[in-house]
Amino acid sequence: MDLDALIRGVEDRSPRALGRAISLLERGEPLGAEPPGPPGAGGSTAEELVRRLYPKTGRARLVGITGPPGSGKSTLVEGLVRHLREQGETVAVLAIDPTSPFTGGALLGDRVRMQSLATDPEVFIRSMATRGALGGLAAAAHDAVDLLDAAGFDVVIVETVGVGQDEVDVVRSVDTVAVVVIPGMGDDIQAVKAGLLEIADVFVLNKADRDGAERTYKDLLFMLETATEAGGESAAEARTPPVLRTVASRPEGIPELAEALAEHRRWLERAGRLRARRRQRLELRVEEALKRRVLAAANRSDRLGREVDRAIVEGSDPYRVADRLFEGLAPFVEQTQEEEDVS
Amino acid sequence: MDLDALIRGVEDRSPRALGRAISLLERGEPLGAEPPGPPGAGGSTAEELVRRLYPKTGRARLVGITGPPGSGKSTLVEGLVRHLREQGETVAVLAIDPTSPFTGGALLGDRVRMQSLATDPEVFIRSMATRGALGGLAAAAHDAVDLLDAAGFDVVIVETVGVGQDEVDVVRSVDTVAVVVIPGMGDDIQAVKAGLLEIADVFVLNKADRDGAERTYKDLLFMLETATEAGGESAAEARTPPVLRTVASRPEGIPELAEALAEHRRWLERAGRLRARRRQRLELRVEEALKRRVLAAANRSDRLGREVDRAIVEGSDPYRVADRLFEGLAPFVEQTQEEEDVS
Repeated sequence: MDLDALIRGVEDRSPRALGRAISLLERGEPLGAEPPGPPGAGGSTAEELVRRLYPKTGRARLVGITGPPGSGKSTLVEGLVRHLREQGETVAVLAIDPTSPFTGGALLGDRVRMQSLATDPEVFIRSMATRGALGGLAAAAHDAVDLLDAAGFDVVIVETVGVGQDEVDVVRSVDTVAVVVIPGMGDDIQAVKAGLLEIADVFVLNKADRDGAERTYKDLLFMLETATEAGGESAAEARTPPVLRTVASRPEGIPELAEALAEHRRWLERAGRLRARRRQRLELRVEEALKRRVLAAANRSDRLGREVDRAIVEGSDPYRVADRLFEGLAPFVEQTQEEEDVS
Repeated sequence: MDLDALIRGVEDRSPRALGRAISLLERGEPLGAEPPGPPGAGGSTAEELVRRLYPKTGRARLVGITGPPGSGKSTLVEGLVRHLREQGETVAVLAIDPTSPFTGGALLGDRVRMQSLATDPEVFIRSMATRGALGGLAAAAHDAVDLLDAAGFDVVIVETVGVGQDEVDVVRSVDTVAVVVIPGMGDDIQAVKAGLLEIADVFVLNKADRDGAERTYKDLLFMLETATEAGGESAAEARTPPVLRTVASRPEGIPELAEALAEHRRWLERAGRLRARRRQRLELRVEEALKRRVLAAANRSDRLGREVDRAIVEGSDPYRVADRLFEGLAPFVEQTQEEEDVS
């Protein structure tokens, strides 16, 4: 399958083409042709695929669902997908499996279970697990979200286990982030609230029929109230994330969750913030791509390796080596400094 | 306190100076003086501190201890520190607290408990939690390890929760990595063995008095046996990680663990691999520092921001924007290409 055929398949939402295209993004491998892109840069067939599809992106609602292992995220996502389908919306789910040694097993189990949805041709479910030295999981996930957006799905759901910076970077690039918590996390909430508040647009207290649910619910509300009072934003700009209670396994509370997600999206548009979020997403992706290009250039003809060898002989510190490599970039720096002087 | 005084304090292993120095590395903030380093680069007082101390590094044994939340890592580290002290060795512990919303609480509790060791002047314990946009946790942790090494501690232990790529990057840069598992993880081991094997020099089955310990132990041994047979290394080069059984809370098995760690270090030296590991560590740090310099340059006078704004107007994809920024680096690329032509 050449790139043109693959792109047509993606635009037709062919599951086979979508699967192949995402595999290509995961691996970053060439698809037979010479890698395009500027000489010496990180250009690849994966990048070319995204470049070609990019003009069609921007339509889908991008939703992130994150939470600790065992919080029932997959069951929740499954319920959400069924509900969205009943509303006539097409849905893609991208489940990010961290390659962490300690969480892989449970996630694989979830994946198999969620396949029950895969018989619906308007639902596409795919897990991704990749850690390239150049780019990494977040970059590949962002590419995949663009691809699913360009393919024309109404909603793209990105599910992650919220345990590492990579996963946080992944959900930061969606429009609306739901953070799933479960009863019994109350004791920890004070210690962790900064991290939770930073990313959550909607809180979901799942397994809300369990002992201790009421206390965790109240703790969450108290935490949000305190944080809003202490927050630096003006009252007009501030938005306190709602706390939804669900029992995904029954299921209960799913329509309310779907409405809360949709309401957040409407708020983003009303407040003029959707544009800001998408700008932030683009900036993050440019930074990733730039780093990839620089490292590819530094590794070309093993220049970086030879500088490291030299450093070992000379006893140089890592910053001296980085300076040497960076000095080759001086014209770039001079140019930006001239611009600074003018402004 | 100026930089000279801070460096003298670090070299004297003054807890106050060590604490201040590591805070400086966490924040990457200037210490009063103008940031040194090349114009436009990521130079900072934190970097200057590392540069100045770097010639004194290379003596300490660098040990990483990683494992899932709840595996008893901190109790294990506490026992290990006591044992090493009985052997007359000075020890520094760097506990990496991921800023993940979901693990912070438990770790904070551990930290308080481990403070019981802090009355010993030859033990230094410090937790780090930081996520800078430029550099991040791994870079700050690597700087802190250098600092503790230069301060003259015999052993530097880096404790992480093995959940994200950042944490894996942190332990990858030590000499010897111990991966802690607990009974009941057996079912998952097949699914996750690639990740475990990639980083483990020593396995520790902690809580080995629990139900299911025997089965997990056998599963681990079987996994290691299979992996060694399938491995690409020659028999002379291959080394199967030992599996130690501990009950850290009693404590049991700690001297054996200490010996296994020391034996791995001796093996590294015998096999000529210590140098290779430390070279890999230096290369990783150079890459981090180079990325930091490039992003600082791209952000200078908001060049990156303006390119992103332009991209939004023009509908450009992220790779086109990265190409534009990268093209300013062309002389660097040409130079490396010429070298390639010559070789």
